[in-house]
Order: sequence, then structure tokens, then C-alpha cells
Amino acid sequence: MSSTLFTHGLVITSDGSRPVIEDGAVLVEDATIAGVGSTTELRGSVADRVIDLGGRILMPGFVNTHTHLAGTITRGLVEDVTTGEYLEKIWPIEALGIANGWFNAGERLAMAEHLLAGITTANDMFFDPASALRNASEIGFRLLAGTVYLDFPGPDGLSPEQRSAELAGLLVEFGTDPLVQVTTAPHGGYTVGPGHLQAIWRDAEANDLLFHIHAAESKEEDATIRERYGHRPVEHLGAVGVLGERTVLAHAIRLDDSDLDLVADTGTAVAHCPISNLKTVSGICRVDDMLSRRIRVGLGTDGGTASNDYDMFAVMRAAATLGKYSTQRPQSFTAREIVGLATIGGASALGMDDRIGSITEGKRADMIVVDTSAPHNVPMFDPFTTLVYQAGRTDVTHVMVHGRLLIERRVFADLDTEAVVAEAVKAGRDITAELSGRDSD
Amino acid sequence: MSSTLFTHGLVITSDGSRPVIEDGAVLVEDATIAGVGSTTELRGSVADRVIDLGGRILMPGFVNTHTHLAGTITRGLVEDVTTGEYLEKIWPIEALGIANGWFNAGERLAMAEHLLAGITTANDMFFDPASALRNASEIGFRLLAGTVYLDFPGPDGLSPEQRSAELAGLLVEFGTDPLVQVTTAPHGGYTVGPGHLQAIWRDAEANDLLFHIHAAESKEEDATIRERYGHRPVEHLGAVGVLGERTVLAHAIRLDDSDLDLVADTGTAVAHCPISNLKTVSGICRVDDMLSRRIRVGLGTDGGTASNDYDMFAVMRAAATLGKYSTQRPQSFTAREIVGLATIGGASALGMDDRIGSITEGKRADMIVVDTSAPHNVPMFDPFTTLVYQAGRTDVTHVMVHGRLLIERRVFADLDTEAVVAEAVKAGRDITAELSGRDSD
Repeated sequence: MSSTLFTHGLVITSDGSRPVIEDGAVLVEDATIAGVGSTTELRGSVADRVIDLGGRILMPGFVNTHTHLAGTITRGLVEDVTTGEYLEKIWPIEALGIANGWFNAGERLAMAEHLLAGITTANDMFFDPASALRNASEIGFRLLAGTVYLDFPGPDGLSPEQRSAELAGLLVEFGTDPLVQVTTAPHGGYTVGPGHLQAIWRDAEANDLLFHIHAAESKEEDATIRERYGHRPVEHLGAVGVLGERTVLAHAIRLDDSDLDLVADTGTAVAHCPISNLKTVSGICRVDDMLSRRIRVGLGTDGGTASNDYDMFAVMRAAATLGKYSTQRPQSFTAREIVGLATIGGASALGMDDRIGSITEGKRADMIVVDTSAPHNVPMFDPFTTLVYQAGRTDVTHVMVHGRLLIERRVFADLDTEAVVAEAVKAGRDITAELSGRDSD
Repeated sequence: MSSTLFTHGLVITSDGSRPVIEDGAVLVEDATIAGVGSTTELRGSVADRVIDLGGRILMPGFVNTHTHLAGTITRGLVEDVTTGEYLEKIWPIEALGIANGWFNAGERLAMAEHLLAGITTANDMFFDPASALRNASEIGFRLLAGTVYLDFPGPDGLSPEQRSAELAGLLVEFGTDPLVQVTTAPHGGYTVGPGHLQAIWRDAEANDLLFHIHAAESKEEDATIRERYGHRPVEHLGAVGVLGERTVLAHAIRLDDSDLDLVADTGTAVAHCPISNLKTVSGICRVDDMLSRRIRVGLGTDGGTASNDYDMFAVMRAAATLGKYSTQRPQSFTAREIVGLATIGGASALGMDDRIGSITEGKRADMIVVDTSAPHNVPMFDPFTTLVYQAGRTDVTHVMVHGRLLIERRVFADLDTEAVVAEAVKAGRDITAELSGRDSD
């Protein structure tokens, strides 16, 4: 058994029973948080290694509830276009990417970026999930990923039958992995028909998997589903029978009160992606009305092609400021609540709050250290305010996932970041060359 | 004469005649940009020092068109309250700060933070401008600051006559300084009466100074001015006669079409502060309608008590995403336009585009280097997109103001950042002690 004792930290637990511990300490044994208290309370603990935090913040790693990891590799390629134009342009590029193997570099890049920014868990949706899960397992990143379903072949060219077979294979390969988790990820209610959604839902139920789906994001989606089924997008998913505690709705913007009640009544969760939603001109999620209905809400970055980077500090600030603006109540969305959404809220939305999302004895040790000594972080009157409105990803110094200290003093112990960046840069050059070659055909 | 030659950079000029120079070079002689071109074109240049940028971005420093520097020191102290409650709480604290000398530390902290984040010019509004101007002059920061006018004494306790005398003193002390610039900064149309505004305007005209004023920000301000004068806030300023090319309106949110026409017709400029405007639930500035009227618009962080930190990368992203959302056109607010607003747009709004805001021969050498090799910045298909949606303040490696290289490889040449942070932390502790002492009285 290996053990680490963190001492003299400002411990933000995201655990309601003791939210902040001044001069706090946390004992980690193997993958598990074995003790939480003040440094004095834990002074009798024995550990292989003691890390003196010198007053820095120790907190749960961030949970990214909706993303497309491999999208790092094509970010910035299709900008300033409508959703329709975007899909028209990006899907052929994604097909090329799958054919040319660009996305492996994108997955590794995204995981490095997530971890460096203090995000220890992500809920991914992209083609070839086995590749992402293998990379995560190797790097030590807590990843949820699974088969992406479409009624039509999609950029990877798979038929619905091949997708079902893919899921079965994922369960064999990763079903008992303690770090990564297989999901189902139907693309959306406008790209997957009712019968197909129900078949996926049965697979998800039979294997106790998350059902991760885009819902109520764009105007185009809304119009398509209304025309085709006579329902609003979330209402449609309810009628099809795929709302419930295993369902995570990405975006969930265009909800009226009855949709909100339906989401609440079915125990469905929401992944709120405020930066993506503004950038794609989709709208503003009614997070306040969700929280007042006790709907589980987590925060998400969305993918690199939509909102470019994977920075939960930026997402927290957007969620806070946009939340205040949209309610017209500056008292709403306190920094403490926002940090909660980014940690335990996300864990809860993914059905993982029994294992991660807070610094609680018995949970997995997914934790980060945030240094608040840079000029932009001082003085600090309230650590939650500093985290949401001042701190940034480069203030994260240490990152531990599943008890393994992946990053110390901003440097990976085992991952060669320069090689990851070099692979990504090379893939970017290949993409440019391939596209300019095709343009000139 | 000292000279520096930057070579092998990706030069983003913000100069319309040659916006991007691949493998570019810039020659600086004393305070002035003496040559701009490709590295090949400038290979005959002789310089004391050659800095090989190795492909990093060289661009104009950011221009922060509206801020309250000293507010760093009280940021995070009053959060989650309405504007009315905020002013009620913050002004007594500011009075204490002036009495106790806390704001000197805040000014120095804010300047360090600005420069580390690549902001080379700021337009400040705070009490005791002489202190800010002295600190800027010593640190090497390009600062615009001047007398803050109120009809009532305000936190500094000065009468209108004492404020007039203060302005005269500032002009004597800083009137010929090549780096810093004296302004007039009447607080707002609801805190300074028409006659007083006109007197300040005459002083501004007589001395050719900027007229920097909060306008059309909060609902409360709007209601007060409508009730008192029967006009909307900007309409009121027009009626009083204080709109014109020297006027910079901070925020300018609550404008109808006729207000926009008035701002355009008078040549008035706008400081757009999107993060502050959302956080204080003030609203969304109609930037698109301003730009289509050719109104000069720059970006601003606002002050630390309103929006906490001073990060133009965060402001650019907010301006871009909120701009797209508010127009409902994803084609609007391209990354290239946003970088323009943050540099030459800001310089133009402050009436300084003859001297700063672009990398143009003959202008002052206010430039920054941005390293785009971190995982979050690759691959780079378009440098403007990377700057707006991925890069962050810690990617800024070099900062030059007025030809002086203040920061190299993220470290100040002459400023002891640790001492600046320590002073700020001490001031923060003093504030906490003072306030808890008063609370317990």
C-alpha cells in the first residue's frame, strides 16, 4: 500500500458536512481518501510521503460533464459559422481524421490539457471510444466514454449494428477497469430515431451505463424535432422513454417549465456548457430553475471544435456571470455554489458522487492543488471567489487521480507533454496539408 | 540610443495594411518602432540586442479602456449583492483604504497583474490619481489617470474645489511625461450634476484631456437620471454638452437607437466591459450596433471590486461569445475583430491610436510576446482564434512598454513581484482586521 499525507492546506472539500478546513490535511491510501481533517487532527497519520501545501488550496478535481476530447485536433478550423454550416464542414474533416488517425493525438492532447487545468474526470462523446479509453487508462485520467450512435453512418462509417458490437467490445475490454467507465452516447434526438434510442436505452439499462445525449441545444434541432415528432426536444426524449437517472442531457437550453418538471420528475441530469452555448449562439440554460427543482447540474467545456479549450476556470466564471445576468439577481450563483457545480455537482450529474466529486473519507482520491500566490489571486478574502473570478488553469500545481499523483509543480511525472504537443502539431500540419490538397483538387 | 530587434515571430500588427507577418521581425529604437517586416526584409538592421522569437506571436500590448486599479486590494470583499448594496458597502471600505494607505499596494499589484497579462496601457478611474501615476511612471506602465469628480465628498473627502486643484497639480507633475497621461474622470451623470460636468468639460477642453465617465451602466443609474432630468443617461450627457471625441463612456449598455446615433454623431467612444456587465447584472452592450455606426469601441476589465481580475484574454473571450450570442449571428465578432478591439480599438477609443495600439513604424513600442506552445494552444490553424479562445495571460512571455522590456520569460526585470504580492497580502490582512474590529464594536 502506498500513502500520501497532504498537510497545511486550505482544504475545500465540496462536502457539505465540513466545506472548508483551514490548515487542513488529507491522507490518501492507495486510490482512496483515508482521512480528512485539520493538520493537527491528522498529525498521528503515517504516510510514505508528506506534502506540505504551505497554505495552498487542496480541492476535488473538476468534473467535465460534457466534452469531445478528440476535437482538440480540429479546433479553430471551422469558426464563425452557423450550426448547419459547421456540421457540413466538420463532419467530412472528422471522417478524414478517423481515416488518417489524427484523433489519437487529439485525445492525448485533450487529456494532458484537462489534467494540467485541474480537470480529473471527463464525460466524452466521440467516435472510436476504445482509443480514448485506452489512452485515459494509460495516462491515468478518469474518463467516461462509449459508443456514439447515429442512424446514418457518420464520419466513422459504422452501421447501427456495428455500433452495438462496438459497445459489447468496450464492455469486455473496460467493464471492470476502476479508472475508466463505459457509457452509451447517442448523438441526439434529431440524429437518432425513437426505435434506435429505445434499443440503446435497453443496452444502457442492461449494463447499468450512462445515457449521454445532446438535447435542446440549437434552434435547428428544436425545429427538426418539433416538425418530425410534434414535441419539444426534451419532451420528445420523455415520450420515447429515455429520460431517467442514467440520462445526462448536454446543453438542455430550450426547456419550458413543463420540460423542466419532466427533467426533475425523471431524475435526469444536465451538463451545462455556457461558453459553448454563447459561442454557438444557442442560448442560455435555465440553470437557476433547474437547481430550484433539485435537478442535478454539472458544468461542461464542450469540445474543441465548439468552444476550443478545456478550462473549467473559464467555464466557472461564465456560469457565474451568465447565471447572475440571466436571473437578474446578483445574489444568485455565489462562487461557493459554482465551485460546487464544477466538482460534486458534476460528479452527481454523472452518477459518480458516491466515488468522486468531494474530499470525503472513503472516496477516490481525485484532488488538485491550486496556488493562490500569483498577483491575480491576492489578496484572498474568500477562496471560492478567488477560484471563480481570479484563478486560472496555470495556478494548478498538483493533480492526483485515483490516488496517483500525475502532476507535481505543473509537470507530469510520467507523460511527456512535449511529445504530446509535438504529435498534435504534426497532426495539425497534416490536416492543413490534406485540406489544402483537397481544396486545390 | 538603445535598440532591439525581434526576429522570427508571427507578427500580428493590428495594422490594416499588413495584419499578419509570417516569420516577421520588428526593430525598436529607444521608445519607437523603427522597422516592421519579414525577418528577411529586416536582416540588415543593426541592433544592440536580437531576440529570436522562435515562432511565437509578437503583437501590440492590450489596451484596457476602463478600470479601477486600486480595486485589486478590496476585490472579493463585497460579492453577490445589488449595485445599491455594493456602493453602500464598498465606499466606507474605500474611505478606510484611503485613510490607511491600502491603495498604494493595490495600484502596484494591479500594474504588475496588467503587465504580466500583456496589458500595456490602462485607463484608470480612482481616488488619488497622483499616486497611481507615480507608481506607473516608476514601474514603466502606460497609465491614463486623473481626478475623479463627485458632487459630494466621496471616500476621499475632497470638495469640488479641492478636486479642481488636484487636477492642476497633476498637470504640473505629469503634463509632459511621455509615458503617463492625465485625464478627467467624472464618476457619472447621476453623481455629478450638469453644471459640475460642464465645468469639468471646460477644464478637459482647455488642457486637451480625456473625459472618462461611467454611463448607462445600472438600472438604478438609468432610473435616477430619467427621474431627475427626464432623459436617458447618454441623452442627458448629450444635453449637458459633454459628448465628443474626448469622451469615453464606460459600459454604455442602456442605449436606444437614438442614443447610439448621438454617440456616433458626436464622435464619442465606448469602453465595453462584458464580464463586469454580466456579473453586476447590468446588461449587454450593443457593440455590433456601435461598430456598424463606426463608433470607437475598446475593451475593459473594469475594476477588481466589480469583476475581480485584469485579464484581457478573458475579456476578449467574453466579448466574442457574448457578441455572437447577442446578435444571434455566429459570423459576427470574428476572433480577428476581437483582437482588433483589444488593441487598436482601445487605443482609438482613448484617442491614442496615433501613438499605440498597433505595430506600425513610428509608433511607441508597446508590444507583447505570446507563446503558443502549451497544450491548450495547439494545433494553431488561425492565430486570432487561438488568442481569443485558447490562450491565456500566462502565455505572455515578454512585455515591452515604450521601448523598455519590462518582462522577459514571464519575469519582471526590475519589479520585485514577490514584494508587491507581499504588500498586497499584508494590506488584505489589515483590511480584514480593521473590518472585523469595526464589526465587533
